Amino acid sequence: MTPLPLRETALLKARRLPFDTFRENVAVLSRRNAVLRPERLAGVRRLEVKARGVAILATPMIADEAAGLAPDEIGLPEPAFRRLCIAPGDAVEIAPARPPRSLDAVRAKIRGETLSAPEMAEVVDDLVHHRCSDMEIAAFLIACASFMTAEETLALTEAMVAAGTRLAWGGRPVVDKHSIGGIPGNRTSLIVAPVAAAHGLVIPKTSSRAITSPAGTADTMEVLARVDLGEDEMRAVVERCGGCIVWGGRVNLSPADDVLISVERPLGIDTPEQMVASILSKKVAAGSRHLVVDMPVGASAKLRDPAAALRVRKLFEYVAARIGISIDVVATDGSRPIGRGVGPLLEAEDVLAVLEGRPEAPRDLLDKSVMLAGRLLESDPEVRGGQGEARARELIASGAARRKLEEIIEAQGESPIRARLGGLAHEVTARRAGRIVSIDCLRIATVARLAGAPTDAGAGLRLLKDVGDVVRAGDPLYRIHGEEPSEFAFAVEAAAEGDGFRIDAGS
Amino acid sequence: MTPLPLRETALLKARRLPFDTFRENVAVLSRRNAVLRPERLAGVRRLEVKARGVAILATPMIADEAAGLAPDEIGLPEPAFRRLCIAPGDAVEIAPARPPRSLDAVRAKIRGETLSAPEMAEVVDDLVHHRCSDMEIAAFLIACASFMTAEETLALTEAMVAAGTRLAWGGRPVVDKHSIGGIPGNRTSLIVAPVAAAHGLVIPKTSSRAITSPAGTADTMEVLARVDLGEDEMRAVVERCGGCIVWGGRVNLSPADDVLISVERPLGIDTPEQMVASILSKKVAAGSRHLVVDMPVGASAKLRDPAAALRVRKLFEYVAARIGISIDVVATDGSRPIGRGVGPLLEAEDVLAVLEGRPEAPRDLLDKSVMLAGRLLESDPEVRGGQGEARARELIASGAARRKLEEIIEAQGESPIRARLGGLAHEVTARRAGRIVSIDCLRIATVARLAGAPTDAGAGLRLLKDVGDVVRAGDPLYRIHGEEPSEFAFAVEAAAEGDGFRIDAGS
Repeated sequence: MTPLPLRETALLKARRLPFDTFRENVAVLSRRNAVLRPERLAGVRRLEVKARGVAILATPMIADEAAGLAPDEIGLPEPAFRRLCIAPGDAVEIAPARPPRSLDAVRAKIRGETLSAPEMAEVVDDLVHHRCSDMEIAAFLIACASFMTAEETLALTEAMVAAGTRLAWGGRPVVDKHSIGGIPGNRTSLIVAPVAAAHGLVIPKTSSRAITSPAGTADTMEVLARVDLGEDEMRAVVERCGGCIVWGGRVNLSPADDVLISVERPLGIDTPEQMVASILSKKVAAGSRHLVVDMPVGASAKLRDPAAALRVRKLFEYVAARIGISIDVVATDGSRPIGRGVGPLLEAEDVLAVLEGRPEAPRDLLDKSVMLAGRLLESDPEVRGGQGEARARELIASGAARRKLEEIIEAQGESPIRARLGGLAHEVTARRAGRIVSIDCLRIATVARLAGAPTDAGAGLRLLKDVGDVVRAGDPLYRIHGEEPSEFAFAVEAAAEGDGFRIDAGS
Repeated sequence: MTPLPLRETALLKARRLPFDTFRENVAVLSRRNAVLRPERLAGVRRLEVKARGVAILATPMIADEAAGLAPDEIGLPEPAFRRLCIAPGDAVEIAPARPPRSLDAVRAKIRGETLSAPEMAEVVDDLVHHRCSDMEIAAFLIACASFMTAEETLALTEAMVAAGTRLAWGGRPVVDKHSIGGIPGNRTSLIVAPVAAAHGLVIPKTSSRAITSPAGTADTMEVLARVDLGEDEMRAVVERCGGCIVWGGRVNLSPADDVLISVERPLGIDTPEQMVASILSKKVAAGSRHLVVDMPVGASAKLRDPAAALRVRKLFEYVAARIGISIDVVATDGSRPIGRGVGPLLEAEDVLAVLEGRPEAPRDLLDKSVMLAGRLLESDPEVRGGQGEARARELIASGAARRKLEEIIEAQGESPIRARLGGLAHEVTARRAGRIVSIDCLRIATVARLAGAPTDAGAGLRLLKDVGDVVRAGDPLYRIHGEEPSEFAFAVEAAAEGDGFRIDAGS
């Protein structure tokens, strides 16, 4: 009888792989690698690569002789060197990765069981330590999509907060505003945040990039300023300006959320429970105590009817109350896009038009921003009840909000992207004469995404007509802008299949 | 206004990548690639690579200068050359892949909608053409796991049959036997198939490799013979011997099922609906008209109680009736493992012991095989009602079944693997004295899988005691065998956490 062996691992010399594998880690071993035979690797989906206690998971690949990798070498891409804190030539250990322990909890969830707070914490721990494959993350998300209790949502939110950094602002009144999304052009945050900061509130706004939409707040802000600030940089901007509008991915406020979003995005899924956990975990981590949530309701919005909206509002209120956030969830008109532009650059143009008081500024974007900002301002004891909106309007009209945005932009620094309007353009025209009775938000978002938004900041579309307008057949309804010919062609094709405008010929 | 462009694609020279990337296709482009700029690829999860109408999807990677890839070259692994029917130096087109069309149906399913037959067909079409990422396949599977109607299961089954080859056997009586699995050591197929063939029935048995268990029928048969036969080879074996026991993956009978299993396996999921669709699609494609299903029911089996078993039986009967298979679903004892060996080689040893009539042959494996074979034989009008089991027992006792298996083994050819018992061994002993009241199938399967089964054919465990046996503390309960030290250590550790045996000290 062979004695029980120590858990054996192989020691290999790390070599820099001249490939960028994007978010996927790979590890290349020689076909002549003596320790882990290639035929064994066929059954191994993930390899654990370790150096001095730090471990990452990687997808294994086998190099033929032609690749020139020695039997005692392992090829790793650049990010692996950074994460493991090693230099080329350093020794790393490898072993087949054990499936993440939380996979048992995921399977229980798939079977229809309810997860406890410790089980949720285990899942989140595996997520933030990158122990789960995309497939496993998708399994967790979809199992949760089928049903998830309010208690589970709370447990997930708390675990996500615990897994990241938590900011503190020395007792000052910290507020935030968030939209649940789904409405193209709804870029009120870029107006509300400067208004709140100009008034004197602290608003450390972090936002995500688009999940299913053509532009997130971070994507749009990136047209104007750098958004990938680290935690210290963000803190400095808020100390100086009273507010910021940065991407949440680098501040480590809710790293588990970033991992979940990386799978939600390509799958295009966005459930109420994930949304509540995602938003509230980010807000509590940012130190906010008062939050206004913009919740658009409409036939083509994320929330189709008042009953669904009520359920989401209750879920927000349930979780917020238990994690110490005072919340104000506002149901808004989700029956049509807001503003004229759809896509990062085109939406940034709308925002600037509003803050500069230009005559062509979209009225709906101004009014909605004023309403939301007003609710935030009323959290200030100094503002008389019912005067929040008037104060917000005054801060915009006086140019104070515009100057505040400029101050924030300067503090955040110059954007690394040079956004310019997509050079390819195509006008979508009315098929018939009549009155426009509705605009399908989902369709407009689909066309803008296919055109390349938000990957291409200058892609998207500009609406030329609104609900209520009377058109003749052939009148332009919107103009699609794009950069990449193949994607642009998809967008034009999709608009030809359905342009999203309902036109009633009337009588 | 720029005119509507043709859908632009980039033409590149294919170069052989010296890597084996297992089932994942990758495509490596130079960082200086002029047509698809690397910064664009960061947003592209999948690339479409085309040559003369054949298209595959691949995960993009970017090569630095050091990799020596020219700007007009694309690096592809060997399988890509085979699938695209091209040689190194040939031109291929690339373009960002459009998300699979069926993703809309998958999202609808996630939202809780019921899919129509055409929608299911669309999903299956995308699956068999490898247009879905693992993440998307997982999303479909888990969404289906939350609920799936009998009509949807039927539609999925029919679509899976339509997507593959369908065999015909010239009007002869074609039968099959299948176990829904979950019971370690339950290798009755390797006995039932030779018995049926020895009797004169046609039994074109294809089976899968293990999904969640330590050994599938194909894994065990591979210890004795080659199992990765193509369709023509399988047909020849059945024409000659009346039966075969091959792996279903190369005969293209239900290629969609193979794709689904490739994701079900690492996630360890196995729902009744997927199981029914998987089994019946393979059987109807193989040309079977009469099917006996072994459905173990027990506390640690896949089906825990009679109510769950009844539901599965009804689902089998519903779908089978509509696709033209006469089915006989038998609830069997799923409270303990069958036979003594668990793992491909160890189970093959049990099978040979039964067919050779050796005194140490496990009685339970013999009796269960006789019962199932008896039911198949009774589909023959020549066999008198109630005489099926006696005839089966006679075919085993006379050596006819053993000779038939040898004939099939010879016809299928020599196995490429040289299975030998894992050189590492560890005995798990009783912690207390008393009578063994139950053996946890799930736990036994987990330990055997951790030990390396089925990847290592010689890994697994051999049961030394059975339910009802009286033991003293320290008596050996089973012996774990393994090959790979790190995996073996996991198995020993898992057995120490829980050995799966319940011992009642009695009074």
